[in-house]
Amino acid sequence: MKKLVNQRENFLGDMLDGLKLRDSNIEILEETIVVRKERKKSGVALVSGGGSGHEPAHAGYVAEGMLDAAVCGEVFTSPTPDKVLAAIKAVDNGDGVLLIIKNYSGDVMNFEMAQEMAQAEGHNVASIIVKDDVAIDNEEQRRGVAGTVIVHKYAGYLSDQNLSLDQITEKVETMMETLYSIGMAIEPCLVPTTGEYGFNLAEDEMEIGIGIHGEKGIYREKSETVDKIVNRLLEELFKHTKSSRLIVMVNGMGGTPDSELSIAAKYVMENLSSREVTVSKLLVGDYMTALDMQGFSLTVLDENQTVLDALEAKTDSKYFK
Amino acid sequence: MKKLVNQRENFLGDMLDGLKLRDSNIEILEETIVVRKERKKSGVALVSGGGSGHEPAHAGYVAEGMLDAAVCGEVFTSPTPDKVLAAIKAVDNGDGVLLIIKNYSGDVMNFEMAQEMAQAEGHNVASIIVKDDVAIDNEEQRRGVAGTVIVHKYAGYLSDQNLSLDQITEKVETMMETLYSIGMAIEPCLVPTTGEYGFNLAEDEMEIGIGIHGEKGIYREKSETVDKIVNRLLEELFKHTKSSRLIVMVNGMGGTPDSELSIAAKYVMENLSSREVTVSKLLVGDYMTALDMQGFSLTVLDENQTVLDALEAKTDSKYFK
Repeated sequence: MKKLVNQRENFLGDMLDGLKLRDSNIEILEETIVVRKERKKSGVALVSGGGSGHEPAHAGYVAEGMLDAAVCGEVFTSPTPDKVLAAIKAVDNGDGVLLIIKNYSGDVMNFEMAQEMAQAEGHNVASIIVKDDVAIDNEEQRRGVAGTVIVHKYAGYLSDQNLSLDQITEKVETMMETLYSIGMAIEPCLVPTTGEYGFNLAEDEMEIGIGIHGEKGIYREKSETVDKIVNRLLEELFKHTKSSRLIVMVNGMGGTPDSELSIAAKYVMENLSSREVTVSKLLVGDYMTALDMQGFSLTVLDENQTVLDALEAKTDSKYFK
Repeated sequence: MKKLVNQRENFLGDMLDGLKLRDSNIEILEETIVVRKERKKSGVALVSGGGSGHEPAHAGYVAEGMLDAAVCGEVFTSPTPDKVLAAIKAVDNGDGVLLIIKNYSGDVMNFEMAQEMAQAEGHNVASIIVKDDVAIDNEEQRRGVAGTVIVHKYAGYLSDQNLSLDQITEKVETMMETLYSIGMAIEPCLVPTTGEYGFNLAEDEMEIGIGIHGEKGIYREKSETVDKIVNRLLEELFKHTKSSRLIVMVNGMGGTPDSELSIAAKYVMENLSSREVTVSKLLVGDYMTALDMQGFSLTVLDENQTVLDALEAKTDSKYFK
């Protein structure tokens, strides 16, 4: 297996050690919990996390204006409830804690268990579950993918506006009603802990509807030029979105060069223009990845002035741009 | 060939169109020259560039605090002298222009030809040539690689301090005397304009001393764990660097996931600590890439307070972090 790692079982620990060296504003608790060195003294605290392999998510968003804590599991593996509980305790300043959970059974179970344990200890904890991936037909089973990062930024902004836990939860729930994503890959990711590729593709094949854990897509198709891929993904998204004014994210899957994200962004904007859709904000970059997978996802969200303000608001995360 | 592109001959144009959609502070002149919409009214203007495929270099550094213009050639192909000349004319405000050239024969020839043409038209133009890649023994033939981005930031800061063209040129020349880089790859890049890989590697092989144009390395070796790779690269760098106080850059080659850059950074810092070297600034990220190549380079520079100030100074480039 060719990976820039030391011992595969140390992937998470080594990565967090390195991350701490890169960002002097964070510290690591219990080897897996990333928090801001200077905890927020008031305002709802935001806790997210999940398996690793999605960098910069989630630890890279532990920063002023975004998350207060990221609970990091091993690669593609949910963190345990005791770690989530420890994160809640580390960041709760008395104004309550919101858990931002991606819709995977392990994450939902472990975060909700931690929520109950924290509530039993007197913490005011709410949770929201992100399920933006429309590759999955069944709404209840939709996975949380790149749209989660928009939730991080929005909730971080609302917390900085001193909204209560109930108010933030309600606003995020409402926003998520029009948050839709779908992803694709031309190359799978190589999982360091197993030494295996998530799937195998022939030279002329691509996957539409991939997940962020190395899963193959819902559809295997002949590979196409990026303008056609963009149209294919937008066709899926427009089965759900109804607005003609959208916030749009073009998210790299980790191994996609920045040049190709620019090219994809061009065709996204051209395509949306031909559909007479106005884009009020365009985000392009690696926000929620699957290790070194080559591909991208598109996320759309109905225009909303508060979300726009949130996306423009200051954060000291080096990864939200 | 699997690449997220439309027509391969439109790679550069499509990429710049996309970049402009991502960054409302830039505009594109003559289809290949990226400049700031609001030109600097005073102070030495900085022009860099070269072939494309190194994103975010160079166009991503056209921003307050860094470059005034990036002249973009096709993938791995030098821009022509007339484009460099047009860039010089577009940004010269009367305080002179510094060309920051990576040491490749095409770039050096074309930028220097443009320099002469501009001088003949009365512009005050100086140039410096970055040759930080110690993979090449012969000093005159050393390639300009990731250290170039440190030069961009340093020169941008000096310009903002209102230093003259002569002063900036001299300071940058002095700084470059201790600027050394070397890179490695575990996977080659796929060049969109040819549809070919830069080289081929067996499952258990890696390349040490790769270039940023898809060139294979100087040494082909058995692949190793990242701690040993880090030591291998530092051994090469310490044949040149003499200081025990260093500025260090860990640069991703484009297809390397951020998690692995964090892991590499950890072992770089551990290794330098064991050599009793103090790191006064650590930069980690994709600064100067080779398309989707998987690997990283290390750059070291003797500690220097002005360079440290420059690296900390504000820029509105989304890519210098």
